Amino acid sequence: MSLVVVGTVAFDAIETPFGKTDKIIGGAAMYAGMSASFFTKNVKIVSVVGDDFPTEKIADFNRRGMATEGLQIKKGEKSFFWAGKYHLDMNSRDTLTTELNVLADFDPILPDSYQDCDFLLLGNLTPTVQRTVLERLHNRPKLVVMDTMNFWMDIALDELKQTIALVDVLTINDEEARQLSGEYSLVKAARKILTMGPKYLVIKKGEHGALLFHGTEVFFAPALPLEEVFDPTGAGDTFAGGFIGYLAKTHDISFSNMKRAIIYGSVMASFCVERFGPERLESLTIGDIENRLQLFVDLVQFDISLS
Amino acid sequence: MSLVVVGTVAFDAIETPFGKTDKIIGGAAMYAGMSASFFTKNVKIVSVVGDDFPTEKIADFNRRGMATEGLQIKKGEKSFFWAGKYHLDMNSRDTLTTELNVLADFDPILPDSYQDCDFLLLGNLTPTVQRTVLERLHNRPKLVVMDTMNFWMDIALDELKQTIALVDVLTINDEEARQLSGEYSLVKAARKILTMGPKYLVIKKGEHGALLFHGTEVFFAPALPLEEVFDPTGAGDTFAGGFIGYLAKTHDISFSNMKRAIIYGSVMASFCVERFGPERLESLTIGDIENRLQLFVDLVQFDISLS
Repeated sequence: MSLVVVGTVAFDAIETPFGKTDKIIGGAAMYAGMSASFFTKNVKIVSVVGDDFPTEKIADFNRRGMATEGLQIKKGEKSFFWAGKYHLDMNSRDTLTTELNVLADFDPILPDSYQDCDFLLLGNLTPTVQRTVLERLHNRPKLVVMDTMNFWMDIALDELKQTIALVDVLTINDEEARQLSGEYSLVKAARKILTMGPKYLVIKKGEHGALLFHGTEVFFAPALPLEEVFDPTGAGDTFAGGFIGYLAKTHDISFSNMKRAIIYGSVMASFCVERFGPERLESLTIGDIENRLQLFVDLVQFDISLS
Repeated sequence: MSLVVVGTVAFDAIETPFGKTDKIIGGAAMYAGMSASFFTKNVKIVSVVGDDFPTEKIADFNRRGMATEGLQIKKGEKSFFWAGKYHLDMNSRDTLTTELNVLADFDPILPDSYQDCDFLLLGNLTPTVQRTVLERLHNRPKLVVMDTMNFWMDIALDELKQTIALVDVLTINDEEARQLSGEYSLVKAARKILTMGPKYLVIKKGEHGALLFHGTEVFFAPALPLEEVFDPTGAGDTFAGGFIGYLAKTHDISFSNMKRAIIYGSVMASFCVERFGPERLESLTIGDIENRLQLFVDLVQFDISLS
């Protein structure tokens, strides 16, 4: 019974209107795994890095309850590296550098110790690699959550759709939902995407919150109004990690529990954007999470008695 | 004890991606008054029209509980007319025609029968006219809500600020909050605007819902995810009318009741956008409102027990 998280573990260099970083650790599996580790200590990472990746960071993952037997370390090779610069509105960014390095021929390894996987998060990665991971598990997990991005819609739509057809929950942002469905209305987009395979669709709207669609049901989780979004890098991955981490902890995939999971995902993402990279997640405590959860409750809770 | 609603009563010609209308009735006071009339039958309109405005529409207002003693009818003159065309995203529009007509020298009349005003809605209008209405009431109302728009920030910022300083609740959209405050972050914008006079600020975010700020408290009301926004004309006025209509009905201006009022405002706005102009409001029933309220409850309600 474990949560397997697949995705990049990498270096980022980030520039925002508030400052810039040197190379810091990043990657979808790093953010999602760290986020999930606040809910369950049985997180197992599938990824690949070069031997330039700091071993003390891997030791830190392990201390947090993230197993790294499936994290390949390629001798003499370099880790994936992305550098980007966010615009003033923080919603758009320019990619300055993308060095695939070890990611170019990533062949995921699923160790025997990972075969107890109950919850699987396919973090943003080549759709074919995502599918390979699912195929290499001997038993289908109880719940498969997939995150992806517009990049794969642009260059590998057919493969993407093949992977989407296999998962239970798809998480994408509003523009990606429009691109994938060809529908402007998110309600129509969701209806179309729910015919592509997933039973649940999460549409992430950044500062405008997230929508969860399932059949004819819909749930809306707000984003916390923040004074500043300091650095949005990893927020979507952190959201996905909190979402599936809470589901794995509670072992309950009912719609009402998915609502709670979306709120926890939103709570985790609200921390992520407060500092550069994973800095805020690294210092986070369970107490911080519970305090912020209360802010979310206060933000949307109202009491109307229907006549 | 009554609700006075000030604003335009006018003609609109609307073009959206779904079709176009001939001249139909419109105006901030028409939308807000009609919306409020679902909550209280003691709505009193202050506005001006020409004798081209259909008398049967005025009779319909009266039947709905909207008094029109303060609605001046100018013989031989024409009503305010606006024509506009919405873009595909429905968030932006081009103004094709603006004919001020009777609005050019509008001098609001507050009949004696309006002097029992407890709740005052200053619908979008010249800030000076809004202020004049407040000055012509012998007693200050219990609650003054003001709606305005970027147009007045562009051409009459000083007068606008003078009026804003006198009201309790200001309702504007996100871009207007940014323009008025010079702050991009809505949290920072709200903090600044709350020093300008109002004790409450509602920031309307269209399809992304609305935020209510008061001191350090914040409440978020979602918008209902709709298949299509057919025509956004009047949605903001309908929101404001539902908001103050509910407050006038319940006679409770606590923060927790304002939360409910915002939800009711959002419910009313969600109907408004479903048809051209006020068409959907004209056919609306109390039962429709209660059913939709339940959708809003279901949309955001979740149950997390904090440890």
